[in-house]
Amino acid sequence: MSPDGMEELKRVAAREAVDRYVRSGMVVGLGTGTTASWAVRRIGERLVEGSLSGVRGVPTSEYTAALARECGVPLVSLSESRPELTIDGADEIAPDLSVIKGRGGALLREKIVAAASRRGVVIVADGSKQVSLLGNGPLPVEVEPFGWETTAEALSELGCAPELRRVKTQPFVTDGGHYTLDCRFPGIPDPAGLACKIKRVPGALECGLFVGLARAAVIATPEGVEVLEAP
Amino acid sequence: MSPDGMEELKRVAAREAVDRYVRSGMVVGLGTGTTASWAVRRIGERLVEGSLSGVRGVPTSEYTAALARECGVPLVSLSESRPELTIDGADEIAPDLSVIKGRGGALLREKIVAAASRRGVVIVADGSKQVSLLGNGPLPVEVEPFGWETTAEALSELGCAPELRRVKTQPFVTDGGHYTLDCRFPGIPDPAGLACKIKRVPGALECGLFVGLARAAVIATPEGVEVLEAP
Repeated sequence: MSPDGMEELKRVAAREAVDRYVRSGMVVGLGTGTTASWAVRRIGERLVEGSLSGVRGVPTSEYTAALARECGVPLVSLSESRPELTIDGADEIAPDLSVIKGRGGALLREKIVAAASRRGVVIVADGSKQVSLLGNGPLPVEVEPFGWETTAEALSELGCAPELRRVKTQPFVTDGGHYTLDCRFPGIPDPAGLACKIKRVPGALECGLFVGLARAAVIATPEGVEVLEAP
Repeated sequence: MSPDGMEELKRVAAREAVDRYVRSGMVVGLGTGTTASWAVRRIGERLVEGSLSGVRGVPTSEYTAALARECGVPLVSLSESRPELTIDGADEIAPDLSVIKGRGGALLREKIVAAASRRGVVIVADGSKQVSLLGNGPLPVEVEPFGWETTAEALSELGCAPELRRVKTQPFVTDGGHYTLDCRFPGIPDPAGLACKIKRVPGALECGLFVGLARAAVIATPEGVEVLEAP
């Protein structure tokens, strides 16, 4: 598919999710990444045209906060208000709506906002993100910079090859001041179990496996939009 | 006991631990807190007098790094070398050598260094730290500042009353840039289980329960020094 076609699918999925799930007066968690950005734009558009009112957003990154301000979406912090639901993208989506997130670099805040959302997360994605088994690409793990090498060593004992994410030659630094290890596993048949094992490693602050947090996924393909609801 | 008497017990425990476990050429993790400071001073003293040589320390805080430099203990980072063992204090010590740490404010780095130590941690303490059941005082949990209120709410559902640690009116900030929630539980009969539940909470980055990390405890009381070895 052309890059433009792909971008259009992301936009369609995000638009459908906003129109289906966001109501006037709601506090909504705003995800980070290209697809989630379309949801922020759609909410802003509807606030401006007046078909939605009183919606406020809880941003999951500095980037998303800036975009929301630009689009006219008022912001509120988690200390003031908890989201009703969060709209966010994903890197991989399994049939049971377990997902991998974090290749966009904001997984810790995304997970905090997702877990704080009363009705969980609505995932928005193009069809290329659907997989039968998680682990096609690397699993991001946000880690404490202090001693990250020993954290990487401990993670490798779980059966993966961790690689420090870099921007040019420097480590990529998250909004929270942490590093990210991209961990390539040969398939992840038990995401909940793996998430628990990863978090047991001192220095592993959060991992990109979101299990039991997605209540629905809105997925756009060239054939149309599919809505999957969690069992 | 007088403050001076208590300080002397801490000094005696730390001295015994260094003399019993530290050998020339070793890389040693250096804990944080009043008792651990005495171990740093003892290592420095023995390097200066020449009865130890080639010992290098991995500090668990900026404070300990500064103290070690002052005492003449050469430092090395975890990326360069892993410790053979770590000498550190504790807030509470159970009979099976599960401990609570972190009231000193350095638990994340302490746990990373402890877990990276080939032979684990030697705990140094005065006798007042021994308990039959952990949970006499609050359990510190290091948390992400973003959304800490919802993290506190999720932790309270585990049966505790979390309180944000402050310095005067401002939140206390760890070396890693995080906050600390002091969580008062009515007794902690299953430290390993609780540690796992705590780490499952998004935003809870590390907790002060150290289970299976202590290989020995050197405890000084007015009656003498007791050495407990892990089973």
